[in-house]
Formats: sequence, structure tokens, C-alpha cells
Amino acid sequence: MKLYKKAILPVGFMASAASSGIKRSGKLDVALFYSEPPAKAAATFTANTIQGAPLAVCKSYLKHNRDFRAIIVNSGNANALTGAQGIKDAIETTKATAKILGVKRESVLVASTGVIARRLPLDKIKRVLPQLTEDLSSQGIQKAKKAIMTTDTFTKEITAKVRIGRETITICGIAKGAGMIAPHMATMLAFIFTDATIGYDVLKVALGNAVAGSFNTITVDGCMSTNDMVMIMANGAGGAAIIKPGTPAYALFNKALLAVCDSLARMIVRDGEGATKFIQIEVTQAKSYAEAKQVALGIANSNLFKCAVYGENYNALGRIAAGIGATGVKIKEKDLGIKISALGKKDITIRVALKRGKKQARVYTSDLTPEYVKINAGYN
Amino acid sequence: MKLYKKAILPVGFMASAASSGIKRSGKLDVALFYSEPPAKAAATFTANTIQGAPLAVCKSYLKHNRDFRAIIVNSGNANALTGAQGIKDAIETTKATAKILGVKRESVLVASTGVIARRLPLDKIKRVLPQLTEDLSSQGIQKAKKAIMTTDTFTKEITAKVRIGRETITICGIAKGAGMIAPHMATMLAFIFTDATIGYDVLKVALGNAVAGSFNTITVDGCMSTNDMVMIMANGAGGAAIIKPGTPAYALFNKALLAVCDSLARMIVRDGEGATKFIQIEVTQAKSYAEAKQVALGIANSNLFKCAVYGENYNALGRIAAGIGATGVKIKEKDLGIKISALGKKDITIRVALKRGKKQARVYTSDLTPEYVKINAGYN
Repeated sequence: MKLYKKAILPVGFMASAASSGIKRSGKLDVALFYSEPPAKAAATFTANTIQGAPLAVCKSYLKHNRDFRAIIVNSGNANALTGAQGIKDAIETTKATAKILGVKRESVLVASTGVIARRLPLDKIKRVLPQLTEDLSSQGIQKAKKAIMTTDTFTKEITAKVRIGRETITICGIAKGAGMIAPHMATMLAFIFTDATIGYDVLKVALGNAVAGSFNTITVDGCMSTNDMVMIMANGAGGAAIIKPGTPAYALFNKALLAVCDSLARMIVRDGEGATKFIQIEVTQAKSYAEAKQVALGIANSNLFKCAVYGENYNALGRIAAGIGATGVKIKEKDLGIKISALGKKDITIRVALKRGKKQARVYTSDLTPEYVKINAGYN
Repeated sequence: MKLYKKAILPVGFMASAASSGIKRSGKLDVALFYSEPPAKAAATFTANTIQGAPLAVCKSYLKHNRDFRAIIVNSGNANALTGAQGIKDAIETTKATAKILGVKRESVLVASTGVIARRLPLDKIKRVLPQLTEDLSSQGIQKAKKAIMTTDTFTKEITAKVRIGRETITICGIAKGAGMIAPHMATMLAFIFTDATIGYDVLKVALGNAVAGSFNTITVDGCMSTNDMVMIMANGAGGAAIIKPGTPAYALFNKALLAVCDSLARMIVRDGEGATKFIQIEVTQAKSYAEAKQVALGIANSNLFKCAVYGENYNALGRIAAGIGATGVKIKEKDLGIKISALGKKDITIRVALKRGKKQARVYTSDLTPEYVKINAGYN
């Protein structure tokens, strides 16, 4: 497997982007992704019980349809908390996109990110659809990866290439993240494209595993958004044999997909709103994976711990212990082993051993800074 | 019942304070509280499973003893995460205090707040004990209420006076709080003194009820400290009849104790580290009190919501909805009623109706500001 720190669309995929005016700044805010051959698709969605309109529409399409052709994404408006009108608007977005592409409405998925509780400016999106369709190209991903951004300060992109038999398949992922990143995905969107040949059910399981091991182990501020999703399209255009469970090809595909998701997840944390530090928390000797993860998140979501890391402050140690104790996991002070790598560096590793068992978990997080507050006080 | 916004010690109590040098600034950092008649005592402690040494010592004394004479408190060092040495030091503190007061070691309770994971400078405390004992007076509370502060910007004090039969009893409370305030009490200390006559078991129940309705409904940053406690001493010196459960006197005492605790809890939130807003969140129409409180805390502990309030930002509404959804409580968007009072004011009320049942809960919290981060990055 080879990893490239750049978005390289696999065979059969094209993309484009436009400025529709949803973002007042005039920045790119609509992206279109298109697969020439019909593709299998799978997605995971936020665990927030309040979900944006695009999620409901995608869930319905994914349930009733098997062949997908496109994803239409806008940034600047999340189309969330918009009620029945929001659902209508999300459906209308897929309908208008499908019409101009000459495909079925249900083969177009939709995603939105940005401000919540405001109606989606549908006309603005419709107005740029002809241009988006005309501009579709494999190079279009370089603009599309920017069009999905909100408060992100850099693009998140990665491409894996794996040999399966005599063919090389490509897995390309782009994401937007920044604030509000919590396990079970919060205000993040990730789109993954592959030319691998794979069945719908197998793709769904593979995505679920990769997300559990990557996006669901990151947290920036413990908040969980209404709109987040990770979506994958697999169009089989790479010409490799079909990937079946239990085969070496399946193992390779899983490994590459996890690598793509893990890379994007790390980039999202690194770009956490206002973040100055990347923190990896490893908890070992827990009774169960759930316990290890609970303890790791107890630390990762402690504002006091995150402020101490920002300030490179000695109190970080005590706040780690307090964060652990606050989870309610019954840990004896004398059994607790905590190691912190040099606080002065940009990348920090916290290792916690609980002396309770043999299980472990790892989460990524960032520090809490005055800049985070300023961004989230003023974001509009 | 009359409430006074000032600490007025009840009959039979005295206090004093000194600068021992634990705080490098030279500010007051040790307080002594003393009851001439032996008093009944009760306390509630942090739910954090990692607890400071003073808590273990107090729990032991409260279990094996019934008559209490004093509380010795220091700020600047929490004597937490200090292992067996910390326990020895906390016991030694009570022993030295008891010796100079001429009382039993087990009749002296102890509390500490400040930096964790550093050994308590025992000698500094011992050095000021003679002076503390000599200075004991009813007016000493005015200095003692300052000596328990850490990052607090103002003293927290309140006194209730209630007529029971022909006598007036007094309930006086002081507290320190500021950051790290979460339900189940986090880095806060509250000391309550009353000259009411009340049995040990009745006092314990009354305190538990008052704490559940006040201190355990506040949150500043979702963090939970290792050292927090609410302590009450009742010395019976007011001369009123003994307060028995189920009587009008008991109802009056409970009401006054709750008023004292509620006032102190509000002050703690108002003085949340860096706070510029006081936020009251009322959740109604829930299936249970637990559900209502879970939803209220889901909002109160959302960093994004707290930043939006700080910025007086329209997005607060969406972030309230996202905070509710993140709790996992299955709420339909169309059933959700959210009302926000004017964001421009200092006191803000959020009302959420869930259309799920008839129960309700209320929590107090504050906004999240750049100042909070700065304080907690640099605190030393």
C-alpha cells in the first residue's frame, strides 16, 4: 500500500466546485462529485438524535437504492433544524442535480454543513448546477476539497493505492472538520471514492470498521453535530476482481480504507478550531475496550486538561487524574500510571495504565485555546 | 425567613484566618472554624473516584465520631494525588489543630483546595496554628471567608435567620468555587454553620436534600474535582427546640438551608472562571427528572453553546438543539420548544419543552470565554 498526501480521484470519478454565494465571503461553497459507472455507496451518520435534513434524505436513498452516481455538497448552511421545509429542500437539491446529470434522483446523495436553523438557499445552489456539471473533471477534486470547508484552515486529503491481483485500486478521501468533533462524528464530512469492485454489504461493513477505528476515536470539544457523515462510493472502474470477505484482497482493502480514514481523522484534530497541540491519549490495562475508551475520553473532554496542555502547565498531570476519576471508573490512586511526553512540543502523547485488565484504546484530541472560544463566539 | 448577603456566624461559632505562605502571593490561605459547644456535623463529597486526602480523613472521622469542634481549611494546595503521605499529612493537620485547641483529633475536620499532586506544606500550616487559635472570634469569619478562595474574584457568603418557636436560629454559609464546577460538586468548598438543635441523622438528610437541589445542579465546565465538599456543623447553641422530621420546624429549617445552598451555588456560577454571563436552563415536559436534568446538562456542558452565549450569537439556538440531541434522548425536532431570553443581557434564561412528559429540572451555568482558557492555562 502506498499513501499520497493529496487527493487523486480513482478511475471513473470526476468533481467540480463553485461559489454560489451561500458564503458571503464569496469562497467556494458547492461541490459536485460524479461517478461515470454506477457505484455502490455506504455511509455512517452522526449519533445525535437531532439530525439535519440531508441525513434523512440520504438514509432513505441508501435504503431503497443500490446504484449511486453523484454527491452534491454545500457549505455555509447545514440545512438542519429546518423542519419539513428542510427535507423538501434537500430532496429538491438531489432532484435538480439528478435532472441536469440525466440520472435518477435517488442516485444523488446530498450533504450540507454550516450554520443551523436557517433555510437552505436552494436557488443559489440551483443557479450553479449547470456550471458544476460542465466543469466536472478528475482534476476538479482540487477545487471540490476546498468547497466543503467551513472554519477549516487547511484541506484534508489523502489517497491510498493498493495492488489487488494484477490491478492497482485507488482509495481517495477528502474531509472537512475543525470544531465540534466528538466521537460518533461531529461537524465533519468525509467523502471517500474508490474504483475497487465490492458488494454493497461488504462495503458497508468495511466502512463501519474503518470509521470505528478512526473518526469515532477523535474529539475536539466533546460536542456532537447534527450533520456529520462519512460517505464512500465504490464504482468498480479499477478493473480489479471483486473483493470478497475473508480474502487477502479484503484484508488489504480494509487496511487501506482504515489508513485513509485515520489520516483524515488526524488532520481534523490537527485543525481543531484554535488548536495548537495534537494530543494522542493511550489507555492500557483496562477491563474492557469500552472502559479504556471511556477513560481516554474522560481525559480528552476535560476542558481543564485541555487548557493545561495549551498552557504547557504542570497541572496537566493532576487534571488527567481528575478527568479519569470523573468517569466513575473505580481506579485506585496508587495503581494509576500516567506518563506525559514533553508538554513543550506540538505533538503530545499521554499514556495511562489502569492495572485493571488487558484491554486498551486510543483517542486523538487537541488543546483548548482562547482562539477556539473566539471562533465559536463569532462564527456566523 | 430572612436572608442577609453577609456571613454572620451563629451563636457559639468563631473563626480566624492567616497567611501561611502556601500561596506565594502572601494572601490569606488558612482558615480555622471553631464551635464552643460540641456540634453535630454532616458532609457531602465529590463523586470523583479519585479523591483528595482530606476527604478520606473527614469520611473516617464522620463515620466514627459524633461531636465536632473545628474545621481547618487551607487554600493553595489540594493535598490530592499525594498518596499515603497525603493521608498522613491530613491527619497530622487535624492532630496539630486538635492539640492546640485542646480537643480530640477526630473532632477536627479538614479541607484543602488548590494545586493537586504536590505535597501539603504541613510546617507552614503548623506555624500559623497558635495565631489562628488566638485570633478566634465571631468576626473572624470576615477574614476566613477570604482565606478559602483560590481563583474566586469575590467572596461567597449568605446568612439565613428563621424563627423556630420563640427562638431565632441562624444558618450561615460561605463557599469558594470558580472553575471546575460540575454536578456532584467540583472544586468547590462550602461550609455551613448553624446554631439549630438537630440530630445527626436528620442533619445528614437535610444537607443531602439541600445539596441535590443546589450545588448538584450547577456546572461551569463539566469537570469534576477531586476535593470538593459541602460541610455543615450544628451546635444547638441557639437555644431552640430540637428539630424533628415531619414538623413545621423541620420544613422551615430545610427551606432555609436550601436557600443558603442555592444562594451560594448561584454565586459560584456567577464567579465561574472568566464568566461574563449567568445562564439558567429550565427543561420541562420530560419523562423523568433524570431525563430533564440530562437534557439541561447536555446544553449546559456544550462548549459550543457556551461560546455562542459569550458571543451573544444567533447560533446559540442551533447549538442548544445539537446539545440536546447529543444526549441521546429521543426527541423529535418538531416537538422541541426552545425559548431564549435576550442574549445581550448578563442574566440569560433558556427554556426547553420536550413534549414527552410532565417532569422538569433546572441547572445554572456560565458562558465559556477566552479568559477561562487563560486562567486555566496559567494557573500555578
